[in-house]
Amino acid sequence: MAEGAGRRYAILAPGAFATRGAKTAHGVIAYARDATVAVIDAEYAGRRVRDVVPYLDSDAPIVASLAEALPFNPNALLVGVAPPGGALPPSWRVSIQQAIGAGLEIVSGLHQFLADDAAFAAGAKRSGSRIWDVRTPPEPRLFTGEIYSVRARVVLTVGSDCAVGKMTAALELTRAARERGADARFLATGQTGIAIAGGGVPVDRTICDFTSGAVEELVLAGGEADVLFVEGQGAINHPAFAAVTLGLLYGAAPDALVLVHLVGREHIEGFGTPLLPLDRLIEIYEALCAAVKPARVAGIALNTHGLDDAASRLAIARTAAETGLPCDDVVRNGPHALYDAMAPRFAEKTKPLA
Amino acid sequence: MAEGAGRRYAILAPGAFATRGAKTAHGVIAYARDATVAVIDAEYAGRRVRDVVPYLDSDAPIVASLAEALPFNPNALLVGVAPPGGALPPSWRVSIQQAIGAGLEIVSGLHQFLADDAAFAAGAKRSGSRIWDVRTPPEPRLFTGEIYSVRARVVLTVGSDCAVGKMTAALELTRAARERGADARFLATGQTGIAIAGGGVPVDRTICDFTSGAVEELVLAGGEADVLFVEGQGAINHPAFAAVTLGLLYGAAPDALVLVHLVGREHIEGFGTPLLPLDRLIEIYEALCAAVKPARVAGIALNTHGLDDAASRLAIARTAAETGLPCDDVVRNGPHALYDAMAPRFAEKTKPLA
Repeated sequence: MAEGAGRRYAILAPGAFATRGAKTAHGVIAYARDATVAVIDAEYAGRRVRDVVPYLDSDAPIVASLAEALPFNPNALLVGVAPPGGALPPSWRVSIQQAIGAGLEIVSGLHQFLADDAAFAAGAKRSGSRIWDVRTPPEPRLFTGEIYSVRARVVLTVGSDCAVGKMTAALELTRAARERGADARFLATGQTGIAIAGGGVPVDRTICDFTSGAVEELVLAGGEADVLFVEGQGAINHPAFAAVTLGLLYGAAPDALVLVHLVGREHIEGFGTPLLPLDRLIEIYEALCAAVKPARVAGIALNTHGLDDAASRLAIARTAAETGLPCDDVVRNGPHALYDAMAPRFAEKTKPLA
Repeated sequence: MAEGAGRRYAILAPGAFATRGAKTAHGVIAYARDATVAVIDAEYAGRRVRDVVPYLDSDAPIVASLAEALPFNPNALLVGVAPPGGALPPSWRVSIQQAIGAGLEIVSGLHQFLADDAAFAAGAKRSGSRIWDVRTPPEPRLFTGEIYSVRARVVLTVGSDCAVGKMTAALELTRAARERGADARFLATGQTGIAIAGGGVPVDRTICDFTSGAVEELVLAGGEADVLFVEGQGAINHPAFAAVTLGLLYGAAPDALVLVHLVGREHIEGFGTPLLPLDRLIEIYEALCAAVKPARVAGIALNTHGLDDAASRLAIARTAAETGLPCDDVVRNGPHALYDAMAPRFAEKTKPLA
């Protein structure tokens, strides 16, 4: 599923660019090699990306409509918001149809596949547009256990909830590993990560019987690297999405885990389930790994977004003390210190039970 | 997805009726209200069901071909074998096509949907046959948490591996509960269970993001009963299928679990992963429940198939002693003793964490 680079995105995020619902938009702006030339959100029209989302280092203009984005010469439209359930809000249809009419490639991470929409498909046929539904699952494939022979060390980010920074931690640690000289790769498992990396496996969209097999195939394909950082999904204590988390955990068969937690998140978002204490959560992840192929949590990527620097330092120190593990905020402080602290724990491959 | 009763099955199990691969055939013969009038397996042609699979109390003849089954007046053909991966072996096509030509309903639990096969669909259109792919998943639906308000007590069978007797335990315990006067229902989550019950949710075929939501919907639909026995799938320590297990565990939000184990099974079948000791397995299941909505293992349904009576008694006593839990073989000894021993533990609904 490797895709060419060189996209110039207009990003569709109507009414949502400033919200966490626009995490696909934010992720692509922050991490993709593809350029973003404009964002479509009437609510902030006339401003620039970094005025609205300060941590994104981008001057790209925000405009009110697809028509206003076209003068910035995009060659692709990215659906930049992930609504719960992944269906297409009807009000977005006009912009997508216009983009197709203008010959732009459409890149979408919705569960509802745009290429299956008769009107979009017909429009794309007329204009020559391509529609890339990044959540298209791979062909069904059962898990085989071949993963246990992979050469690369496999590191999986796991979380205390959805949307806490698992993808970002994997991307930042990949960067750190490369800068330390390792042949490190990021393996994407969600729509934003796939849009950023240009390929991957949309784990949440796989048929549950084949979830671990799809992840195994993804990791095998990267197996000649030194170290693979696999983007985690959901959380093992998430009432709705833990099946995705566990299929990913057993399919990737990691040698080490990195736990990602957002300071201040005390309940599973949208469900109210109180989060377990981190040490208990670590026990559960490690107990599941120990049932198949042992892996330990090597460190904590603590997301201290929203805290001031002093409070962030305190939270990091407290979490390190509570868990006895290396801990840092890899966005605020860069990934190198945490990577260096964890690297000895990434050094060995673990073996499956036998 | 409730289906009418009154089927008279010819069951297709070529070369496999005596094997555990024919578990759909065996399950339907043992538990469905639908009748089985013939089994198709050339290897045992001329014998009767109970001659080949002694625990099945059925005189139905085994024949060599669909043509030889027709004189027994079937009105439906059941695909009675579940090959790994669920694809249709090409050699079965002739029998299915002949059955369609003869106007039989086709009932199949394969992952590969027979109704999507152009030749079968065309044949069915000509003959008026219906094709029921029991593994057709429900419309995608996210888990909402409504399950936490369901009236019924929910009991889920969980296993130490696939194919150890989780469906059978749920069916037998449902029977015991009814005979004790409870409004008890069996909820099917796999192809055999669905064929037996005439409806259910093929959990392994759901999209992973929606697995827990599909199970929640199934349980909500049965929610007015006193007690629901939900058929478990896979095992939490299964390298390939644990995602299905966990999606089912959180989606059903059980009040109690029944652990099912096959005596002598020491490794995950087909993968070689050693099984955890039962007490450790119980800890993992309970730890996951405790992260969302507490539930305890109320007892052990020990499958002592293949042991003589003395060895079975010893295995049951030993497992009860090791785990401190009620334990019995619900097939060999009937489900009533185990049901009665566990019933006090089924009495209360547990509450989700809050």
